[in-house]
Amino acid sequence: MIPVELIKKKREGEVLTPDELQKFVNGYVNGEIPDYQMAAWLMAVYFQGMSDTEMKEFTRVMIHSGTVIDLSFIPGVKVDKHSTGGVGDKVSVILAPLVAACGIPVPMISGRGLGHTGGTLDKLESIPGFRTDLDIDSYKKTIEKIGVVMIGQTKDIAPADKKMYALRDVTATVECIPLIAGSIMSKKLAEGIDALVLDVKTGSGAFMRKKSEAIELAKTLINVGESFGKRTIGFITDMNQPLGNAVGNWLEIEECIRCMKGNEIQDLMEVTYRLAGAMIYLGGKSGSIEEGESVAREAIESGAAFEKFLQLVNEQGGDVSYIENPTRYKKAEYNKEVVLGKEGFVSEIDNYGIGIAGLITGAGRRKIDDSIDYTAGIIIHKKIGDRVGKEDPIATVYANEKKNVEDAVLRITEAYRLSDDAVEPRQYIYGMADKNGYYDY
Amino acid sequence: MIPVELIKKKREGEVLTPDELQKFVNGYVNGEIPDYQMAAWLMAVYFQGMSDTEMKEFTRVMIHSGTVIDLSFIPGVKVDKHSTGGVGDKVSVILAPLVAACGIPVPMISGRGLGHTGGTLDKLESIPGFRTDLDIDSYKKTIEKIGVVMIGQTKDIAPADKKMYALRDVTATVECIPLIAGSIMSKKLAEGIDALVLDVKTGSGAFMRKKSEAIELAKTLINVGESFGKRTIGFITDMNQPLGNAVGNWLEIEECIRCMKGNEIQDLMEVTYRLAGAMIYLGGKSGSIEEGESVAREAIESGAAFEKFLQLVNEQGGDVSYIENPTRYKKAEYNKEVVLGKEGFVSEIDNYGIGIAGLITGAGRRKIDDSIDYTAGIIIHKKIGDRVGKEDPIATVYANEKKNVEDAVLRITEAYRLSDDAVEPRQYIYGMADKNGYYDY
Repeated sequence: MIPVELIKKKREGEVLTPDELQKFVNGYVNGEIPDYQMAAWLMAVYFQGMSDTEMKEFTRVMIHSGTVIDLSFIPGVKVDKHSTGGVGDKVSVILAPLVAACGIPVPMISGRGLGHTGGTLDKLESIPGFRTDLDIDSYKKTIEKIGVVMIGQTKDIAPADKKMYALRDVTATVECIPLIAGSIMSKKLAEGIDALVLDVKTGSGAFMRKKSEAIELAKTLINVGESFGKRTIGFITDMNQPLGNAVGNWLEIEECIRCMKGNEIQDLMEVTYRLAGAMIYLGGKSGSIEEGESVAREAIESGAAFEKFLQLVNEQGGDVSYIENPTRYKKAEYNKEVVLGKEGFVSEIDNYGIGIAGLITGAGRRKIDDSIDYTAGIIIHKKIGDRVGKEDPIATVYANEKKNVEDAVLRITEAYRLSDDAVEPRQYIYGMADKNGYYDY
Repeated sequence: MIPVELIKKKREGEVLTPDELQKFVNGYVNGEIPDYQMAAWLMAVYFQGMSDTEMKEFTRVMIHSGTVIDLSFIPGVKVDKHSTGGVGDKVSVILAPLVAACGIPVPMISGRGLGHTGGTLDKLESIPGFRTDLDIDSYKKTIEKIGVVMIGQTKDIAPADKKMYALRDVTATVECIPLIAGSIMSKKLAEGIDALVLDVKTGSGAFMRKKSEAIELAKTLINVGESFGKRTIGFITDMNQPLGNAVGNWLEIEECIRCMKGNEIQDLMEVTYRLAGAMIYLGGKSGSIEEGESVAREAIESGAAFEKFLQLVNEQGGDVSYIENPTRYKKAEYNKEVVLGKEGFVSEIDNYGIGIAGLITGAGRRKIDDSIDYTAGIIIHKKIGDRVGKEDPIATVYANEKKNVEDAVLRITEAYRLSDDAVEPRQYIYGMADKNGYYDY
């Protein structure tokens, strides 16, 4: 294999053979192919795409670049969920214990905050003592013991993706459906699942701003998942405003605790119940997604989901006293209400701007090695469709540096648009996709 | 400047500002921007191109990445020639002393063999003692003293191009007109010339296989040259068979000596005289290109051109006794005639294959640090349109390793196509381009 010939082949829009993909990707992982050749190839893929077969072979090569975990010793259909990420997207924190409480094993491997979005790992790590860096052996033991586990990608799982992802991030080759599909699905298919539910977000706070792109991505991910024999269902959900009210790590955990205790937040729980319904359905514990949703609601009402969450936190080293009594948690030193000084109905929120405001408070990373301030963040009080009075706070900012408070307030202020006329609230879930296609709700 | 934002900008087909281009290219030269980001950007340029202004600014940045030589202390219009390269393209070796003999200063910076093509520097260095690595000071003194100098790109001239060219070669981003234009013109515009003649080759042995691409490249190069105030004329010439008969370094020098002594080889000298005519015209020593051609023919016939070549060789450390008496030069240990064993008229030559056969004999490099065998190469006996008898040799291969002889013979055999019907010889020069457009002959 001559690497430059494979770059040229892709540049010319040709399809690489399975053998060529394997040599190119593995050559990159073991250092024979330098970053600059992979970077040129990735940009060529950005422009030329991949054929259906090529994308599946690419995913296969990525999966087998590392350990493929075998969870077949655990009875039942193992189901995971993946979200393409957003602002205030804390669904996994509730969903994993909730679905596990319904008797479905949930082996979940999550990521960190990326760009303006938050990450499940960062949120979980805001719980004092909680460890997400379990090795594969502990991962297996935990899921076997309590039916749920939440960890980060280890160095053994899809190392090709890990290395390529870091490169894509700095070479403007992130926004490319076959590369996104290979990245997501290689990790998910290596973790030992039998079925997968996808939450593909769209809107101003999502990576796929356009709904049509989100649908295309969902279909592609489902196509890849099904081709590997994993039943896959996807939902297209709204990311034009934060999901729930909290943005920021511990603030979001607190919100999840309240929801698990039955204090429902409408948009967050509508999405959570729908995804849970699909997971329970795929896990064989209900005859339909709707029935699965009812099963999930019962698990919240009975307290079983919260109980499972306590068990999960305890098992992964977290201090459950903070979960039982969240007010024990340290508060950010400063907080300030955001008041627009004008009235109307919230017609639009630049949710990317809210995500950036979250970063500014200290809740996210501006550079890769920044540390996170777990107490920092934003609580949103007014969402799309809500009426705002002249003196009403639309949000409250929490931070430990005064300058960051002011910067975040400014950014949030700029993100809101008011209208004199009443505005309909947003739809939370746009539709569903499975191997047969996409259905708009 | 955030490098990934500039990559994204180009990926989206936007135009980079002069400031952005400067920061990106200079950042690459000084090591702030790594190879992988430049590689991704180059591939984005491959797909999205550059605007006219952008390409000129890009060239300007490349020029000013190093020393811009000032030759204004030398009287007269300094004219150089650039060829896009081919098989057996030895024109510069004759042209530079020839035009200098007509009173026009010729400061020439040439390259080495690239891919299947030969390079002027390698050919000159086959002359024992000839040095092409003069520093800028010696370069200036030589042109001042004898009116001609032929060197290689020094580390001071357009270092951005030097570094980017090496990267393009291994990332499949060579074949891209704005990048080619920036590369060629930055070197030429940094060497202190006032005017430039271009030989843009097209055909099976050229980088631009299609005539339409060659015309587009010629127009682009002229556009850039003229925008920097340098009068630029280009010719589109044929590269569907070797130019002249010799392929290989010393073999080509020998052929040049014969031509300079008046033993004309038709295709080689037709191209040489046309380019010389244009250089003499741009140098102000004739009223037209045609008149310039006549001036050039006289300089060959009078022996002035050969005299100037002897002077050049001597000045740059070469042993003139080999030029005066080429039979003194060592011969390759092995030689073999290529006989097809069938008869007909030569209808087609895969000139890329001839170039590769040249590499195989040892006349070129397969890897970047291979050494060159100056005595190796090919003498072509039959060209397109020639009649070949069953026992006629179509070429003779020269090499110092027996296996290479056989491999080269095979490759040459495969490159020839014969026809039963008579075939017209090829046109040598297709047309001419200047700032007003392209004219087909």
